[in-house]
Amino acid sequence: MSPAPLLNLFDYERRAEARTHPAVWDFFAAGAGDSITVAENRRAFERTFLRPRMLVDVSRIDTTTRLLGSPVAAPIMIAPSGPHGVLCPGGEADTAAAAGRAGMIMVAASGSTRPIEAIAAASTAPLWLQLYLYPERPRTLALLRRAEAAGCRAIVLTVDSPVFGRKERSLRTEDSFDWPESGNLEGLPPPSAPPVRGAPATWDDVDWLRQATPLPLVLKGILTGEDAALAAGRGAAAVVVSNHGGRQLDGAIASLDALPEVAAAVGGRCEIYLDGGIRRGVDVLKALARGAQAVMIGRPILWGLAVDGTAGAFDVLDILHRELAAAMRLCGRPTLASIDRDLVR
Amino acid sequence: MSPAPLLNLFDYERRAEARTHPAVWDFFAAGAGDSITVAENRRAFERTFLRPRMLVDVSRIDTTTRLLGSPVAAPIMIAPSGPHGVLCPGGEADTAAAAGRAGMIMVAASGSTRPIEAIAAASTAPLWLQLYLYPERPRTLALLRRAEAAGCRAIVLTVDSPVFGRKERSLRTEDSFDWPESGNLEGLPPPSAPPVRGAPATWDDVDWLRQATPLPLVLKGILTGEDAALAAGRGAAAVVVSNHGGRQLDGAIASLDALPEVAAAVGGRCEIYLDGGIRRGVDVLKALARGAQAVMIGRPILWGLAVDGTAGAFDVLDILHRELAAAMRLCGRPTLASIDRDLVR
Amino acid sequence: MSPAPLLNLFDYERRAEARTHPAVWDFFAAGAGDSITVAENRRAFERTFLRPRMLVDVSRIDTTTRLLGSPVAAPIMIAPSGPHGVLCPGGEADTAAAAGRAGMIMVAASGSTRPIEAIAAASTAPLWLQLYLYPERPRTLALLRRAEAAGCRAIVLTVDSPVFGRKERSLRTEDSFDWPESGNLEGLPPPSAPPVRGAPATWDDVDWLRQATPLPLVLKGILTGEDAALAAGRGAAAVVVSNHGGRQLDGAIASLDALPEVAAAVGGRCEIYLDGGIRRGVDVLKALARGAQAVMIGRPILWGLAVDGTAGAFDVLDILHRELAAAMRLCGRPTLASIDRDLVR
Amino acid sequence: MSPAPLLNLFDYERRAEARTHPAVWDFFAAGAGDSITVAENRRAFERTFLRPRMLVDVSRIDTTTRLLGSPVAAPIMIAPSGPHGVLCPGGEADTAAAAGRAGMIMVAASGSTRPIEAIAAASTAPLWLQLYLYPERPRTLALLRRAEAAGCRAIVLTVDSPVFGRKERSLRTEDSFDWPESGNLEGLPPPSAPPVRGAPATWDDVDWLRQATPLPLVLKGILTGEDAALAAGRGAAAVVVSNHGGRQLDGAIASLDALPEVAAAVGGRCEIYLDGGIRRGVDVLKALARGAQAVMIGRPILWGLAVDGTAGAFDVLDILHRELAAAMRLCGRPTLASIDRDLVR
Repeated sequence: MSPAPLLNLFDYERRAEARTHPAVWDFFAAGAGDSITVAENRRAFERTFLRPRMLVDVSRIDTTTRLLGSPVAAPIMIAPSGPHGVLCPGGEADTAAAAGRAGMIMVAASGSTRPIEAIAAASTAPLWLQLYLYPERPRTLALLRRAEAAGCRAIVLTVDSPVFGRKERSLRTEDSFDWPESGNLEGLPPPSAPPVRGAPATWDDVDWLRQATPLPLVLKGILTGEDAALAAGRGAAAVVVSNHGGRQLDGAIASLDALPEVAAAVGGRCEIYLDGGIRRGVDVLKALARGAQAVMIGRPILWGLAVDGTAGAFDVLDILHRELAAAMRLCGRPTLASIDRDLVR
Repeated sequence: MSPAPLLNLFDYERRAEARTHPAVWDFFAAGAGDSITVAENRRAFERTFLRPRMLVDVSRIDTTTRLLGSPVAAPIMIAPSGPHGVLCPGGEADTAAAAGRAGMIMVAASGSTRPIEAIAAASTAPLWLQLYLYPERPRTLALLRRAEAAGCRAIVLTVDSPVFGRKERSLRTEDSFDWPESGNLEGLPPPSAPPVRGAPATWDDVDWLRQATPLPLVLKGILTGEDAALAAGRGAAAVVVSNHGGRQLDGAIASLDALPEVAAAVGGRCEIYLDGGIRRGVDVLKALARGAQAVMIGRPILWGLAVDGTAGAFDVLDILHRELAAAMRLCGRPTLASIDRDLVR
Repeated sequence: MSPAPLLNLFDYERRAEARTHPAVWDFFAAGAGDSITVAENRRAFERTFLRPRMLVDVSRIDTTTRLLGSPVAAPIMIAPSGPHGVLCPGGEADTAAAAGRAGMIMVAASGSTRPIEAIAAASTAPLWLQLYLYPERPRTLALLRRAEAAGCRAIVLTVDSPVFGRKERSLRTEDSFDWPESGNLEGLPPPSAPPVRGAPATWDDVDWLRQATPLPLVLKGILTGEDAALAAGRGAAAVVVSNHGGRQLDGAIASLDALPEVAAAVGGRCEIYLDGGIRRGVDVLKALARGAQAVMIGRPILWGLAVDGTAGAFDVLDILHRELAAAMRLCGRPTLASIDRDLVR
Repeated sequence: MSPAPLLNLFDYERRAEARTHPAVWDFFAAGAGDSITVAENRRAFERTFLRPRMLVDVSRIDTTTRLLGSPVAAPIMIAPSGPHGVLCPGGEADTAAAAGRAGMIMVAASGSTRPIEAIAAASTAPLWLQLYLYPERPRTLALLRRAEAAGCRAIVLTVDSPVFGRKERSLRTEDSFDWPESGNLEGLPPPSAPPVRGAPATWDDVDWLRQATPLPLVLKGILTGEDAALAAGRGAAAVVVSNHGGRQLDGAIASLDALPEVAAAVGGRCEIYLDGGIRRGVDVLKALARGAQAVMIGRPILWGLAVDGTAGAFDVLDILHRELAAAMRLCGRPTLASIDRDLVR
């Protein structure tokens, strides 16, 4: 009997769980605390209903756009996550190949299994690098220089992790797996102390980072209009409305629910992305209608990698892309520009 | 032991499932995506509560009305669906006989197993024909001419299907059944290309269709006040507030929830029908109280056909009709004209 | 092992079900349609939260009041229901004895197993008689005269039953039990036709009934402010906000939710009672805080009768009474007059 | 195999249940009535979502504060409960030792297994004594004098128990355990009658109590703005917004939901604490954001005692304390003073 077809991202989730070491699965699946925010991220999409328009000319659907100036096939990015090397032999290089094939942006995590240079070599689409700020600025600067040399086009600073969220499900099993070191961080100046659990940073660090690199700066983990306004005012090129997939502060507002106030506060001064709970093309549509320019996909990429490496990760992106195009067609919104607030109830 | 009595439509659903090929069942039962809209259609009825009036003279209950000028026994129509030939030998001719016996309108699907002429021959109540617009206008015109000749009294254009919704539950099993060709489409001018998956149309096509036939035109699949106003302005005789039984855009608003804004936008310029989730006579009442002139019934008719052909489909209509009359009596609304917005909380 | 103690009404429900013929149980438990209103009656209480006041002098709790002038031990009445003869040998005479022992009003159903004279003979508390209006007025007049002669102090006209609700759960099993005739209706002038299924009446009938008996008239089954205002204007002494325990119109508003508009419309011109979903003393309190002067208890009395006849029905009333007194004490409302709208959130 | 780690308070709950006599467990776990308020207390936290701020300097988190003038390590107190002697040999002395180690206030219950003097001897943190008012004032005065002599720093009067709530779950099993006498009440002047079930008190008693002791007076069990204003006006040093863990009036408002109106009514005139449903550090944060200065922990302390006496109770406090600090860090609120209403949605 041939295996059941992989029609959607939930199919990938089930298949991936069956193929992954339980400790690895627990690490990626876990939310902080009681996973209230993990569940709320999904519920926010499920209770958002659409008002589709009919009899619009949707003979041609265009999902392309530019994100920080780079043309992309769709407003779907790969969120930073990792380490991918525990899911497939090629690690993040496999992920980059999938992103390139899909024409979508990958945000590589600074703690990736593979060095950023190897990821860049496998990449044919725009590559961005995610950072936590290290207390040792030379260490951060060295990573920035490597990212610039590797051709990364933006730096994504994760701002929601002054301490790492307590993922209890993972704490119960993590010791049963032999976790690899980060291949990306090997060559850097050593930290002055054992790796901190978390990365405190302040707006002053953001200012410093902005002048430390010519690359546009994206702040990931914004959940309030107040912070979004500060980000835009301090020259951030984009913010990512995110609660870190429910892995940091359990009880944090669902990212979709935070989006309207962020959009209102930003007022077009910088781009806005969203992650957290995207599982269907129609979810992408809901996020765009609420004010995002693009979304980021976290766990589903891991499921794709676990099932079939590059091919699996590409298929996950491709399913979402096709679902998004179909949803745009069914909603009478043939272009991203035609997606407006009236689309959501 | 005699079989359990069929007291309501849910009894028919259970009985029908037991008698139907799983692939056929999956096809008819499936919703798009995660079936969020399928569930929401029902929830919308279940969370709508009634304010019945007492001590009104309800000794005579009158459920009759006129729909686009045709007198009917009740404001209940058979929604276009199909193919019925996979459920009972007579296919849509059985359905038409049931409609005639009930004195209710049947909307035949253009892709029916049986030709419209055969359906009309079996029909003693008003018959309407549903259309998807074909890119080849001669093909559409040929179908219109046949409908007119067969005595159809209205054309129902489905406007929510520029692409067909992805019914995953059905995709997993559809290949295990040998689906018949549409008997109705056999004699038409051939399409210029393989049958499109979906039928894109625009308001210009609506204008063309209006002048292409003297029959009144109904637009099925409207979910916003904006589109309803356009439909009325372009001369539609009626709109059907519908999300295609949750089979097109998963996440679309429940049809009952879309009804008030449609009623407000139309302002009496055309008739308004609703489909999606009607399972009880009291649901018909709720839809009428929110602004519809009639409802359409989709899946329950299929259950009736699967259980007992014409007799089953008639019984489904008859149960709903009797439930509606009883509910009108219990609400102090002896006529359809007496059903007002004050009836719903 | 001694049986589990009967601490609350839910204990009585479980015990009663185990002791009752399934067809009888189904008849009493059934709601109309999908029992949406049965469930909503309870949910309305469960989502109503209280704002108790502290440090009030609650050393003496007084639950006594007058209902239509009759002093009672508590604002708790026995709703008309029946036939009780299928639950215990003494039938409604057992119920009346329980009411008398509790000092609470019993509303006898006109279709009771036992004649009203026998019920009155067993009664030491005020007895009211419930009526459906018969098309044959001599039949109604005969019943009124008997009620007056038996000492009934009020007539309760059920106004929500122009047709009887379809209790499908009961329809599936009712034929497996040999239901008794109504002992109360035996001596009356015969109906001109087989017993109607339901009792249509209009406001004109209410006017006729008012002049046909000197007894105060209570209208049971009011769910809107409009009807409550009409009732008060037509001289009703009281209205019962009731959806007939969810047994008539499925989808009708929960009685607790209808109470505020009824109270506002009546403006003190007549008394207001509520039935539907009362299972705890605190539910009585919620109903009083929302504007009722008393509540009626339906199914729980049947549970008490089924478990232990008079003793069981008394215990049900007594549990509720004690729970009410305790709840008043815990809320800082030592008298019924001190229960105000501020008590509910 | 080593036992599963105790990562959070729910782990303690499961472990404790397995180690505790069922009757004891039922007594502590039980809510009044149908435990609607027990459940609502938790739901109120779970549906309260946070708006965390990012890029604030959270390198140092300060959870310290002063409660009625006493410095404490965190705004977390041990609620009065008991008897602890049925959970661990040292009883409340073990609890006091845990509080001292944690630097948090313990509120000893007047009905404790151990005398207040023994509890005070084991205590290195501020100790408060909870009281029910006895009708015999000499008995109350004797207890006050002992509390003062033992060094208690505040008196907590429970005002929500004019009668004790009916904890049915416990009523069904309490007789299967041999409950000890209160060691604390042994030496007092005898009551004039058998111990009352509940402790009625009025505002006059509060006035009397205020002048009967120089210790600051805390009123525990306030759920309305009206009562909170009265408390502040009568000189209470603090109020505890509490429904007694859902053990008194079932259907009472969730304590978290009552907090805003209490905070508004008090207007800073006295301190405000909350108990009921706190299970996570983030719950503490939610309570503080809604207007409390501190929270009290009831059942979880019992779980800690049952699992491992002083060490278990300390660990429960310590887990909450660490969770609170982490949540403050993740919310950009490094001090208690920085926690404001904007933190909750």
